[in-house]
Amino acid sequence: MTRHFQKIDLPVWQVRRYLEPGPIVLVSSTWKGRRNIMTMGWHTIMEFSPSLVGCIISSANHSFEMVRQSRACVINLPTTALTDEVIGIGNCSGAEIDKFDHFGLTADKAKKVNAPLIRECYANFECRLADDSLVDKYNFFIWEVVKAQVAVSPKHPQTLHYTGDGVFMVSGKIISRRRQFLPEML
Amino acid sequence: MTRHFQKIDLPVWQVRRYLEPGPIVLVSSTWKGRRNIMTMGWHTIMEFSPSLVGCIISSANHSFEMVRQSRACVINLPTTALTDEVIGIGNCSGAEIDKFDHFGLTADKAKKVNAPLIRECYANFECRLADDSLVDKYNFFIWEVVKAQVAVSPKHPQTLHYTGDGVFMVSGKIISRRRQFLPEML
Repeated sequence: MTRHFQKIDLPVWQVRRYLEPGPIVLVSSTWKGRRNIMTMGWHTIMEFSPSLVGCIISSANHSFEMVRQSRACVINLPTTALTDEVIGIGNCSGAEIDKFDHFGLTADKAKKVNAPLIRECYANFECRLADDSLVDKYNFFIWEVVKAQVAVSPKHPQTLHYTGDGVFMVSGKIISRRRQFLPEML
Repeated sequence: MTRHFQKIDLPVWQVRRYLEPGPIVLVSSTWKGRRNIMTMGWHTIMEFSPSLVGCIISSANHSFEMVRQSRACVINLPTTALTDEVIGIGNCSGAEIDKFDHFGLTADKAKKVNAPLIRECYANFECRLADDSLVDKYNFFIWEVVKAQVAVSPKHPQTLHYTGDGVFMVSGKIISRRRQFLPEML
């Protein structure tokens, strides 16, 4: 049911290609011998270089202390093939179950950070905590992506975009307007 | 070519419905008798209540000082009907032209903040600057949405999601998985 993608390295400044359109993502982490996955939809690119991503991870989540203490995570990009897993992972807590085992996902070792990555996802962005100054006030984490790997194909993955109330928008057609852009505005 | 939508009020905590899927937006503002619009794609919902949205507005943009000084803006949601305007607005600077005039867009008075809203957009989210503590370091603004209006129809607007390099993903099909969600996870 889920696919195993062949992946290649992506320059980290190009992660905007996959995160800027607003997909739901899966955040994986580990701390003190435990590991976890959470579903996350509140994130934004903040800078190309260093490659920064800001996101909200609520203190109500089991992953909150894991990522705060380990100062690492992997942001994994699921496609519609993992829709059931995306919802299921959001429905339960890592305090009670191991979500990799429960959902049949493969934890691979990340290359540059101490966190597991999810093999079945289209892309894996390894992150180090760059700034925790807004964590106490807003649960807002600023990550630096230090390693990025993406699937070779399809070129445009079918991603899930959450709108609340149990409803997702699925990524649609691709249009190129490259010739209309000033080069410095691309 | 552009449409004028009939709009209704939306509870501000529901703006995630339109912003969480990651659309490109148009940010409008005014300061000292000048007004401007910029195209913006790096934003995230941060909280339901107060309704907070974080976004990057580069100091290289003419809008930067306008929103910083006026501490107000409107986040407008364009549909694919405004694709040419979205690109054109990103290609030029408000230091040289009035973008409302140049692109034939209508500046309506916002209800709660001192900033013009764009009538031709599907939705208008009036924002007050809630936190500027990360502006110097990251150009990151945290806004509180204090008033939200959205079009009555279509229920699911066709939005633009930028992937860099002149390429957009257009919002695709809508799938409801409401019955799979735990109620508190919606």
